Amino acid sequence: MPSSTKERILDVTADLFRQYGYTGTGLKQIVTNANAPFGSLYHFFPGGKEQLGGEVIRRSGEMYYELLEAVLDAEPDPVQGIAAFFAGAAEVLRETDYADACPIATVALEVASRSEPLRQATADVFDSWVTGAAGRLAAGGIPPDAARTLAILVISTLEGAFVLCRASRTTEALDVGGQAMAAAVQAALPPSAPQRPSASPRVRRRRSH
Amino acid sequence: MPSSTKERILDVTADLFRQYGYTGTGLKQIVTNANAPFGSLYHFFPGGKEQLGGEVIRRSGEMYYELLEAVLDAEPDPVQGIAAFFAGAAEVLRETDYADACPIATVALEVASRSEPLRQATADVFDSWVTGAAGRLAAGGIPPDAARTLAILVISTLEGAFVLCRASRTTEALDVGGQAMAAAVQAALPPSAPQRPSASPRVRRRRSH
Repeated sequence: MPSSTKERILDVTADLFRQYGYTGTGLKQIVTNANAPFGSLYHFFPGGKEQLGGEVIRRSGEMYYELLEAVLDAEPDPVQGIAAFFAGAAEVLRETDYADACPIATVALEVASRSEPLRQATADVFDSWVTGAAGRLAAGGIPPDAARTLAILVISTLEGAFVLCRASRTTEALDVGGQAMAAAVQAALPPSAPQRPSASPRVRRRRSH
Repeated sequence: MPSSTKERILDVTADLFRQYGYTGTGLKQIVTNANAPFGSLYHFFPGGKEQLGGEVIRRSGEMYYELLEAVLDAEPDPVQGIAAFFAGAAEVLRETDYADACPIATVALEVASRSEPLRQATADVFDSWVTGAAGRLAAGGIPPDAARTLAILVISTLEGAFVLCRASRTTEALDVGGQAMAAAVQAALPPSAPQRPSASPRVRRRRSH
């Protein structure tokens, strides 16, 4: 089924944000890439670029969290799940010429001191990732406080590794971060939990945005 | 001694990049904030915004690394040094209304897919931080390969924590990251190395830019 005009606008804006950020993405570029008439922008997003930006941030955040869940669900335990997510992120970066990393980080840094509604949208996304990841770690047997701390550490390490990897055009920081975070999850799990660490986690899926 | 016009341009551009990024910083805003005539921009930076951007990235990177060294030098061991650096970064964020985090991260994400000279400048800065931090950790007795891995992990965690902290307007991610990285350095040090872990690392200095 072909996507609607609104969906195409949201999709191409998400892609442009990821590569060039909020300020570097022009409305003309959005409608051109979406093959949409200019008027459709203000039809679907009467609040203009800021409204569009907020919807793209929240939608991209949800889609990226669904990807995380899918990767974790495909692995036998959280240790391999975290390792597979970092490995998959590194693979996507290489395949996209180091363009396709976190869907919201560039925008988050740009808007933090500039737009309160957009800053709040990025904060809500990161909070939903932390809460979701902490819940999954807690379900694996890690005490709730430790699970939240670990979730924050994993997401921080992932985000920072994206910064270094896009700059250096290598995946070294994601490789290092993935190994360290898998080890941190392993160390936090109770000894009785089933753990089958693997030296070379499989990577099963591609990003489908 | 009053700073020169060129220094004022570099200083205010660095400050604007940190808050608003490369694309979001206008040349008019730069000369206004620097109290400099517009022509001075092209006098000092005949290559325009991209040349100015490259010089600001490299200069900010050097200054930030000097700050890291100063903090580490003021602490009795690398464990307390790393803890103090994260604690100091958190204090600066709070004091600057969550504006003043990494001097180059916003620009690094924006330009990674857009300007090869500026991407290279950010890559060189991160590489210099990793190499410098790894050298210091190796001097503390950590084997060189492990020291490099640890340096990458510390810098990734710091950068990612900045993203989360600026978005959330809390310092939770820096607090979590600082504790985790201090523990990681502690675990990597040889047992014979002098270590005096402290529950509440002192913060001795302010950022002076």
